[in-house]
Amino acid sequence: MNPSKHGKLYLLPVPLGENALETLPAYLIERMHGLTHFIAERARTARRFLKTTGIERPISELHILELNKRTTDAERAALLNPCLEGKDVGLLSEAGCPAVADPGALVVARAHELGIEVVPLVGPSSILLALMGSGMNGQGFTFHGYLSQKPNELARDLQRLEREARRTRFTQLCIETPYRNNKFVETALKTLGADVRFGIAADLTLETEYIRT
Amino acid sequence: MNPSKHGKLYLLPVPLGENALETLPAYLIERMHGLTHFIAERARTARRFLKTTGIERPISELHILELNKRTTDAERAALLNPCLEGKDVGLLSEAGCPAVADPGALVVARAHELGIEVVPLVGPSSILLALMGSGMNGQGFTFHGYLSQKPNELARDLQRLEREARRTRFTQLCIETPYRNNKFVETALKTLGADVRFGIAADLTLETEYIRT
Repeated sequence: MNPSKHGKLYLLPVPLGENALETLPAYLIERMHGLTHFIAERARTARRFLKTTGIERPISELHILELNKRTTDAERAALLNPCLEGKDVGLLSEAGCPAVADPGALVVARAHELGIEVVPLVGPSSILLALMGSGMNGQGFTFHGYLSQKPNELARDLQRLEREARRTRFTQLCIETPYRNNKFVETALKTLGADVRFGIAADLTLETEYIRT
Repeated sequence: MNPSKHGKLYLLPVPLGENALETLPAYLIERMHGLTHFIAERARTARRFLKTTGIERPISELHILELNKRTTDAERAALLNPCLEGKDVGLLSEAGCPAVADPGALVVARAHELGIEVVPLVGPSSILLALMGSGMNGQGFTFHGYLSQKPNELARDLQRLEREARRTRFTQLCIETPYRNNKFVETALKTLGADVRFGIAADLTLETEYIRT
């Protein structure tokens, strides 16, 4: 257990669309192509993504462990074994930054416990892009992840965000999958106060803020 | 006032150190080098940064308007005039992402009012990197900007964050300038509960989270 002999855990952001490769910094591509071991939510989409980045190493030589709902406790416990054996590992998100609105945070926490160095790399985050582009309060904001999918509970969640915004004056951000956006916006417009500034950005991120009353 | 004739407002992240140019995606450099008009907190550091990115256009041909405490109301109102005249404008941060923990949000809000298209670009954010690297809750988090600089008020602010974290289980993030870090950490260690997970990342970002009790 000599931490200096451990491999590192690289946190590798993934763009939100196949046309978004230009958003990846060169150093991210470089580090990623140097790796043979990865952790991803779905090995299939991870492989497809790595191919689109022009990785030269044959895909068959890559070791991709999955972390998702079907991952057993034993598999979870083994995810960082390559690091303990001295190999660098890349943690990939399905979209955006690993460990942000993504199950990867568990792996990062475990890495810290094991004395494995964690190296987060710069890349796309729909949450951050939405906040930047909104012109809403960027000095204080709260991200809530996904709100409820049930209409009644969604309305209650939105009212809670409205109260938070009025209390703190912070921008309130949340995320929703594209095919539920219409329903979400409909519920928000019915539920939120008329003085509420409400915005939707990109396909993946919704954000709301509330003007001072 | 035909929005289609307006220039765009590009939001251009800036790396946190001079050795961090590799964190900038190629498309950010490209868009930036295509611009002649910029808004920045300090024209001098903006010019220096643009030089380090290898901009070919002579620095003397760049128009950099300042947005800071000394900017008058009249100057503020005129910041987006180049956009209204059909020129693209780049909004630069001193470090990190414009409009996030940065006065740029006012410019973005004004751009929306004027019907100017806002284009946020991917780049480094110490806040996001710290959150990714922390292994703390990435499904819910709050960013508080700067806490108070006065020791008594700082302790009160930290206690407020601790209460928020216990109530919401969200990661609580804040930011501090490097030369105040020691004082900040000292106060935090004296003030926060013993069951509190507290972390400091990079030079610029501090973050705290609290284990479930």
